[in-house]
Amino acid sequence: MGKKVVIIGGVAGGASAAARLRRLDEQAEIIMMEKGEYISFANCGLPYYIGGEITEKSALTLQTPNSFHARFNVDVRINNEVVAIDKEAKKVKVKKTDTGEVYEESYDKLILSPGAEPIRPTVNGFDNPKVFTLRNIPDTYKIKDYTKKANVHSAIVVGGGYIGIEMAENLFRAGLDVTIVEGADHIIAPLDAEMACDVQNHIRDKGIELILNDKVLSIEDSGEGLNVKLASGDRYADMVILSIGVRPESKIAKEAGLAVNDRGAVLVNENMLTSDEDIYAAGDVVAIQDFVTGGEGYIPLAGPANKQGRIVADNITGIKSVYKGTQGTGVLKAFDMTVATTGIKEEAAKKSGLDYEKSYTYSASHATYYPGAVNMSVKLIFEKVSGKILGAQIVGYDGVEKRLDVIATAMRAGMTIFDLTELELSYAPPFSSAKDPVNMAGFVAENIMTGKTKVFHWNEVDKLPRDGSVNLLDIRTRMEYDNGTLDGFMNIPVDELRQNLDRLDKTKPVYVTCQIGLRGHVACRILSQNGFDCYNLSGGYRLYASIKR
Amino acid sequence: MGKKVVIIGGVAGGASAAARLRRLDEQAEIIMMEKGEYISFANCGLPYYIGGEITEKSALTLQTPNSFHARFNVDVRINNEVVAIDKEAKKVKVKKTDTGEVYEESYDKLILSPGAEPIRPTVNGFDNPKVFTLRNIPDTYKIKDYTKKANVHSAIVVGGGYIGIEMAENLFRAGLDVTIVEGADHIIAPLDAEMACDVQNHIRDKGIELILNDKVLSIEDSGEGLNVKLASGDRYADMVILSIGVRPESKIAKEAGLAVNDRGAVLVNENMLTSDEDIYAAGDVVAIQDFVTGGEGYIPLAGPANKQGRIVADNITGIKSVYKGTQGTGVLKAFDMTVATTGIKEEAAKKSGLDYEKSYTYSASHATYYPGAVNMSVKLIFEKVSGKILGAQIVGYDGVEKRLDVIATAMRAGMTIFDLTELELSYAPPFSSAKDPVNMAGFVAENIMTGKTKVFHWNEVDKLPRDGSVNLLDIRTRMEYDNGTLDGFMNIPVDELRQNLDRLDKTKPVYVTCQIGLRGHVACRILSQNGFDCYNLSGGYRLYASIKR
Ligand SMILES: Cc1cc2nc3c(=O)[nH]c(=O)nc-3n(C[C@H](O)[C@H](O)[C@H](O)COP(=O)(O)OP(=O)(O)OC[C@H]3O[C@@H](n4cnc5c(N)ncnc54)[C@H](O)[C@@H]3O)c2cc1C
Ligand SMILES: Cc1cc2nc3c(=O)[nH]c(=O)nc-3n(C[C@H](O)[C@H](O)[C@H](O)COP(=O)(O)OP(=O)(O)OC[C@H]3O[C@@H](n4cnc5c(N)ncnc54)[C@H](O)[C@@H]3O)c2cc1C
Ligand SMILES: CC(C)(COP(=O)(O)OP(=O)(O)OC[C@H]1O[C@@H](n2cnc3c(N)ncnc32)[C@H](O)[C@@H]1OP(=O)(O)O)[C@@H](O)C(=O)NCCC(=O)NCCS
Ligand SMILES: CC(C)(COP(=O)(O)OP(=O)(O)OC[C@H]1O[C@@H](n2cnc3c(N)ncnc32)[C@H](O)[C@@H]1OP(=O)(O)O)[C@@H](O)C(=O)NCCC(=O)NCCS
Repeated sequence: MGKKVVIIGGVAGGASAAARLRRLDEQAEIIMMEKGEYISFANCGLPYYIGGEITEKSALTLQTPNSFHARFNVDVRINNEVVAIDKEAKKVKVKKTDTGEVYEESYDKLILSPGAEPIRPTVNGFDNPKVFTLRNIPDTYKIKDYTKKANVHSAIVVGGGYIGIEMAENLFRAGLDVTIVEGADHIIAPLDAEMACDVQNHIRDKGIELILNDKVLSIEDSGEGLNVKLASGDRYADMVILSIGVRPESKIAKEAGLAVNDRGAVLVNENMLTSDEDIYAAGDVVAIQDFVTGGEGYIPLAGPANKQGRIVADNITGIKSVYKGTQGTGVLKAFDMTVATTGIKEEAAKKSGLDYEKSYTYSASHATYYPGAVNMSVKLIFEKVSGKILGAQIVGYDGVEKRLDVIATAMRAGMTIFDLTELELSYAPPFSSAKDPVNMAGFVAENIMTGKTKVFHWNEVDKLPRDGSVNLLDIRTRMEYDNGTLDGFMNIPVDELRQNLDRLDKTKPVYVTCQIGLRGHVACRILSQNGFDCYNLSGGYRLYASIKR
Repeated sequence: MGKKVVIIGGVAGGASAAARLRRLDEQAEIIMMEKGEYISFANCGLPYYIGGEITEKSALTLQTPNSFHARFNVDVRINNEVVAIDKEAKKVKVKKTDTGEVYEESYDKLILSPGAEPIRPTVNGFDNPKVFTLRNIPDTYKIKDYTKKANVHSAIVVGGGYIGIEMAENLFRAGLDVTIVEGADHIIAPLDAEMACDVQNHIRDKGIELILNDKVLSIEDSGEGLNVKLASGDRYADMVILSIGVRPESKIAKEAGLAVNDRGAVLVNENMLTSDEDIYAAGDVVAIQDFVTGGEGYIPLAGPANKQGRIVADNITGIKSVYKGTQGTGVLKAFDMTVATTGIKEEAAKKSGLDYEKSYTYSASHATYYPGAVNMSVKLIFEKVSGKILGAQIVGYDGVEKRLDVIATAMRAGMTIFDLTELELSYAPPFSSAKDPVNMAGFVAENIMTGKTKVFHWNEVDKLPRDGSVNLLDIRTRMEYDNGTLDGFMNIPVDELRQNLDRLDKTKPVYVTCQIGLRGHVACRILSQNGFDCYNLSGGYRLYASIKR
């Protein structure tokens, strides 16, 4: 018999570690403890079962205890909760959740992958049985069964993060009236506020009510349903979904004396080893190194959990695999839209004191002359001096996650915005343009960095003087201008600009807007070479209007 | 007046150079000579206009001479063909194609972007007016008008490259019976033969006839249509499309004494400067440096042409932009399938004498539990010692070009297959799996490179001894096995393997197959740790069967 490995948690990190471990070591004794009834389930699919997009219960579990044992010869113990770790004695104390029986199990190596639990603040009424959280399959059935009751017609989703938006969409799909209450000034925290506007507009258009900058003060059960007290007033709903984030399930780790950080995330080194030389950890329970800032972070995602599980198995068998940090690449379907992000957002760059610049572009998913092209909005955040990419946010419909993954890959490789201009990406009319949106974002960032076109940003528009001390110029067509422009801006279409330079006052700066920034760039190049001090509205009127809507 | 720049060719490379040049230099005198009637047209969209997917003629041109002049103040001269370059006198001789008038134009800098012309071998009958090639808008109208004739029902497309396949699909869409005749043993040259099989099967299933390993010996006009003589016999068709490749349109460059290579491609340095210090070149007319091998190559694509045009403009205005080579990233829609490639194929790696290895994987476009997941077939070619990625080929339906672009980006960054295992790509069920197909390809390549699982390949299957001197083992389920297996292979399902090791002869090697290679990897790990010398069929039964179909 080889070494004895006990694993706590049988899903993303735990099951991945177990499978790889068995492949690497046929002799090891592997015991996988799972306090719940299921292993190897599709956490990320749960909202879609509630909404009815996934119809089969069986689709939610990738492996059963039996199949996992047959394939990997792992002793899978469901309904077995590890309640204590004795790291000196190298033993865990286990409680059978069905019988209450308690027993001990020794280990040579222990793997922690207990995941994270939904945060439930101590607010009056959050313990009401009509207030749900979603983490596992039993939660899922409970919510789905409840939505099917005859008298359940409305839901409030508290928290507009990834899971909150997915739940809102799926409850809506299940026929409920849905309201999202979000404490911040915008939904989807990995986005900066201005990039969230298009998504907010979209989900409102779909029929979801969205309340920002507000929070739940208390919940009262009216007997029939719930009176939800918000700062902005009272609301009624038949059920509430709490999705304001998760926290590492690290109670037993802490009690065992493993090093954890302030938020309770288990600290690990680059081999995913905890402060104890025989205990590894993976997944939502660990603190990660932020790939971009190098600082400590907490980014609970399935891709990292799976990879970390595999790395743990490698290290236990003597392969020195290294986890190089999490950059926070994520994607969300929000009805017809796709939102994808990687790296840090502007807000975080600012907080970190980084000297950054940003670019906004708006590009077609594929050649505009081929049917079906739709636009996506791309924000790049990059270091001012080096051009190193710090983060990207893309919001749109088709092809969003492709461009995001390309940028995420470029970031992993330490590439700069200059490198983005050179990427050779696949092009044929149904798939992209000869200059891919990623190339385009690179060109625009390059023009900003090298000073070819100076820019001003959407949040500066309202502050521009309207007293004639600056030139305010909309260079779109007359028709576009007539349909709405920025307050106080005059119109000279770019194609007539060279002939009308005398209408501008060369002694005063010129602030230029067009629809997305492209023609503004052309106009600014004309103006600056004619001696004007000129600034192009980054992201153009479109971005500004989407924020003001 | 600033410097005088003459541009030959008004489309991808030429128009891009002109636009960027104007943005960088408002004072330059820019003259764009275009021998045809159109500038700035969508070469790549032409087949889709013929098939009817693009319906508007206007969609085919991104700019007209007027709009281009208004926006960029460029003197656009359509129907003006440059017939000679005098590089000593720095003059071009220009012929007006409508009037025949000839005149001279001097330049300070000259930009060549005349593109490439379809190859028309000197075969009897290739000059028949019912034999078409497709390069520009007039060609497109000619073909489309001809397909609409009452008596036109069938077409033979000669050459199964990207344009050939696009034409075949679009003529088929336009209602014709279509046959493709391809000289090589497979269509789509950037693919290795075994990767083309799925595409060949697909387009045959769609109703296209495909003749491989054959060529047109001559064509005779029967009055009504064409008798096309193939090595394999005679064929009748109402029209023929010749799409066997293009050659650089470099006649005037050669005559002017510019350095060109054997195939006539103009030689340029990394700044896109030709052998003459005042003449730059971009696009399909130039020889490129192969990004992977470092050797000279010829890869005529729109993305590189656009980027090179921009780089030429930079250099003319004193910005020392560098073109770092073409890696040959391309994508093709073939009916419902997508084919995408980057870097070199195995055949090329072999020819270059590179010490390479390869991996095959077959992964779902997104989480299999979420509706709509479809598989894609991924081939990676990588250096044996370093793991450096040399090329990738992906064939499938949804999400193919995303994974290809990610790998293309990784290649640009000089990444290895080890890096692919670490890429943090966006995951939610509608978009990918927690281990993205690119990660998975990395894992499998890593296992091959590090010797964790030894593999054998599809082309070795038939050569395996069937005399009992080796173990031949199919580890799929009984049902899969009964539906068809490799000749001579016995069945032990992987989940029963540990209990049945005694049915195998440990003194003889074991050749394992499963469906795609995944379970074979698990089985090989079990077997090798139990003392067997074991080999997994890379790509599994699926790949083998797709080739043998
Ligand atoms: C609704 C939902 C949607 C999501 N969508 C996405 C998405 O689209 N993309 C994405 O990247 N990520 C998504 N995630 C996050 C992703 O599921 C997690 O990052 C990942 O599952 C973490 O893996 P893990 O192994 O750390 O924890 P888990 O997968 O949660 O597994 C931990 C397991 O450990 C068990 N356990 C805990 N403590 C003990 C104990 N003491 N003894 C025994 N067993 C114990 C738990 O019961 C649990 O089953 C989603 C999560 C949820 C809940
Ligand atoms: C049908 C078709 C489909 C394609 N599909 C794709 C695809 O999906 N993806 C992809 O990446 N690439 C594709 N390509 C290739 C792509 O179009 C070319 O790589 C690109 O257009 C090359 O740009 P260029 O500027 O070098 O040449 P071109 O775009 O061909 O422009 C050259 C211009 O120069 C003019 N010219 C030539 N000689 C002279 C002269 N002496 N005087 C004046 N004018 C002259 C020509 O008339 C022509 O208009 C396709 C090409 C075709 C024909
Ligand atoms: C499914 C689960 C048990 C992992 O099992 P796994 O065997 O490691 O993962 P996969 O089935 O994806 O197989 C991957 C292995 O097959 C190999 N493989 C894949 N395709 C292959 C091919 N075509 N040829 C050869 N090997 C292949 C890979 O290299 C890898 O092996 P390695 O780790 O030894 O390199 C675990 O991920 C799990 O429980 N997942 C569900 C929970 C979850 O992830 N939730 C969050 C997301 S919803
Ligand atoms: C259209 C064509 C004339 C090129 O013109 P172009 O002005 O260089 O290209 P685009 O319209 O894409 O604009 C790109 C410019 O706008 C800038 N830009 C794009 N979006 C922007 C934004 N949101 N904000 C600011 N600037 C922006 C880019 O930085 C770039 O400028 P730069 O080169 O100075 O950096 C030329 O590509 C062409 O003729 N194409 C058709 C032919 C062809 O390509 N055929 C093959 C494929 S079918």
